[in-house]
Amino acid sequence: MLKQSRVQRVIANMEAEQLKQIIISSKESIYYLTGIWVDPFERMFALYLDDSGRVVLFGNELFCLQPEPGMELVVGKDGVNPLPDLASVVKPGKIGIDKTWQSKYLIGLMELRKDIVPVNGSTPVDMARLQKDAEEIEAMRNASRINDDVMKTAISLIHEGATESEISGRIEKMFAERGGDHSPEGQIVSFGGNAADPHHEANNTVIRDGDNIVLDIFTPIHRYWCDMTRTVFFCHVSEKQKTVYEAVKRANLAAEELIRPGLPMCEFDRAARKVLENAGFGKYFTHRLGHGCGLECHEMPENSSANSMIALPGMVFSVEPGVYLPGELGVRIEDLVVVTETGCEVLNQVTKELTVVE
Amino acid sequence: MLKQSRVQRVIANMEAEQLKQIIISSKESIYYLTGIWVDPFERMFALYLDDSGRVVLFGNELFCLQPEPGMELVVGKDGVNPLPDLASVVKPGKIGIDKTWQSKYLIGLMELRKDIVPVNGSTPVDMARLQKDAEEIEAMRNASRINDDVMKTAISLIHEGATESEISGRIEKMFAERGGDHSPEGQIVSFGGNAADPHHEANNTVIRDGDNIVLDIFTPIHRYWCDMTRTVFFCHVSEKQKTVYEAVKRANLAAEELIRPGLPMCEFDRAARKVLENAGFGKYFTHRLGHGCGLECHEMPENSSANSMIALPGMVFSVEPGVYLPGELGVRIEDLVVVTETGCEVLNQVTKELTVVE
Repeated sequence: MLKQSRVQRVIANMEAEQLKQIIISSKESIYYLTGIWVDPFERMFALYLDDSGRVVLFGNELFCLQPEPGMELVVGKDGVNPLPDLASVVKPGKIGIDKTWQSKYLIGLMELRKDIVPVNGSTPVDMARLQKDAEEIEAMRNASRINDDVMKTAISLIHEGATESEISGRIEKMFAERGGDHSPEGQIVSFGGNAADPHHEANNTVIRDGDNIVLDIFTPIHRYWCDMTRTVFFCHVSEKQKTVYEAVKRANLAAEELIRPGLPMCEFDRAARKVLENAGFGKYFTHRLGHGCGLECHEMPENSSANSMIALPGMVFSVEPGVYLPGELGVRIEDLVVVTETGCEVLNQVTKELTVVE
Repeated sequence: MLKQSRVQRVIANMEAEQLKQIIISSKESIYYLTGIWVDPFERMFALYLDDSGRVVLFGNELFCLQPEPGMELVVGKDGVNPLPDLASVVKPGKIGIDKTWQSKYLIGLMELRKDIVPVNGSTPVDMARLQKDAEEIEAMRNASRINDDVMKTAISLIHEGATESEISGRIEKMFAERGGDHSPEGQIVSFGGNAADPHHEANNTVIRDGDNIVLDIFTPIHRYWCDMTRTVFFCHVSEKQKTVYEAVKRANLAAEELIRPGLPMCEFDRAARKVLENAGFGKYFTHRLGHGCGLECHEMPENSSANSMIALPGMVFSVEPGVYLPGELGVRIEDLVVVTETGCEVLNQVTKELTVVE
């Protein structure tokens, strides 16, 4: 069902950018506006929107799309070029193009319509998606509640002889059993020095006494992503591991305590980074503090030192400081937070107290 | 290491299309030419190639790229627009653009270089990738050998009380244990009427006596995909299931017996379809016979009635006829084949004899 309030927000954003028409191709953005989820693979799936409120969805007969009020539907078929239909709808002049639309479509459209001027045009939808509405925030809460449950169970499953792949596979299975969609990437489970690579891929490494264990787990649940990291220790924890862990925890908490509407995003990164710099680990915090999260695991707003955007209520992003000592260890603690009217709501409840499992 | 023989094939294909320069953005195509695998996510990753053999790779410092002989390397960083570097390398006039390059980059490049004329330009690389070389065919054989092993074990694991999700999860685990990369999509396991949807997502459906079980399993292994389907029956098989199964098997074999270089691809689809039409199931075979497979699970050549391309040695594609009776049953049998000098080599060895498991 077409979400008229969201469409109207997008149109208002188009006007602010003097865009009279846009083509939306991101499946997440189309879902956001229409409630229709399609995995189009190599077929064209696009939503045309103009400032008069005309909405035209272009799909393929294989998508099984149904007509809906307020939206025109153009259904193509395999073997027939879908672009002439689209070309017949667009108006001359400037047209906003979604950032990830495949070039083959854009080039084909430009060849059919020499009178258009394509410009980057994702912002109107991205800015609408940036501030989640009540329905979305509830979906994010629900996904993170399930993530909390999976994380707690995963930590309880760690045992002598466990491999990264085994724990990673069990996490995937738990998500599937709890209604998670299939995650396009594997769950991150990193033991000891493997965790010094923040994106380490789980392999057959066997757990050893004294290992740090980074669990970075994420999956879409009813289309909205959860994403959380906890680091725990196996059997023993060294003084150095403790020092690193407590610094990362303080960095995570310092940022979460600061988050509120009206501050520039870069302040949150700065607050966390300062804690780690003061602890002597600044140069080992090698990535941004976090990323926006919603219908995509990584979306706006970037939670980094480079983002001067002002935090607004309804933004959802990760807070995930980490320290990575090459060949030695990695520690990361990550929550999702939603900006409220006065501060932020942390969506993850799994303890951040230093935990040693046996 | 730059694969010079592959680069030269691409340049020859460029000349045939009067393309003097192309931008390649598909990570699989860049891997094919350079041996470098990067998951760039939202960052720009592109290979510029001109007809003089100039090769320039554009990446990001986070990709950890190393200089290599025969290839220039331009390493950008987060927060700095990578397009001016690319714009300084391209020449005026026609430029071939990879089909899936994100529009934000193409639009940005067009704004910086008003003197270029972008055209669709994936064909030179796609045509080279279309005929696998010896190294690639060995990789495909290896992946399908592992798939055979996983399929046989999966069939042996079917038991009273099993759910689709359970079997699907076990298949993923087996692939991971045998060196498979994480599959971006879930394994297809469909019981009974669920199998009437060829792309059914495994859920908590419990197996029932007399169910058909479609196992469509696929994953990249050292970058090259395997993809195979078998249909077996639980405890009992009805006369109708038998009739459908034998017709699908005959369709699969008819196509595989026909495949050889020099015939148009559409003949293979026709041969399989004719068997099913003669058996009265023509209208229930609702998709193409198959798809090319290699570094991508779906790539050229399309194995369909719409493809008049002539089969050539080194092409690899699936042969997967199916019959789908809505609400009732689904049967599909799929192998990967590689076209040889005289016929085809079937890469999958798991029996296609009607199998009833208990």
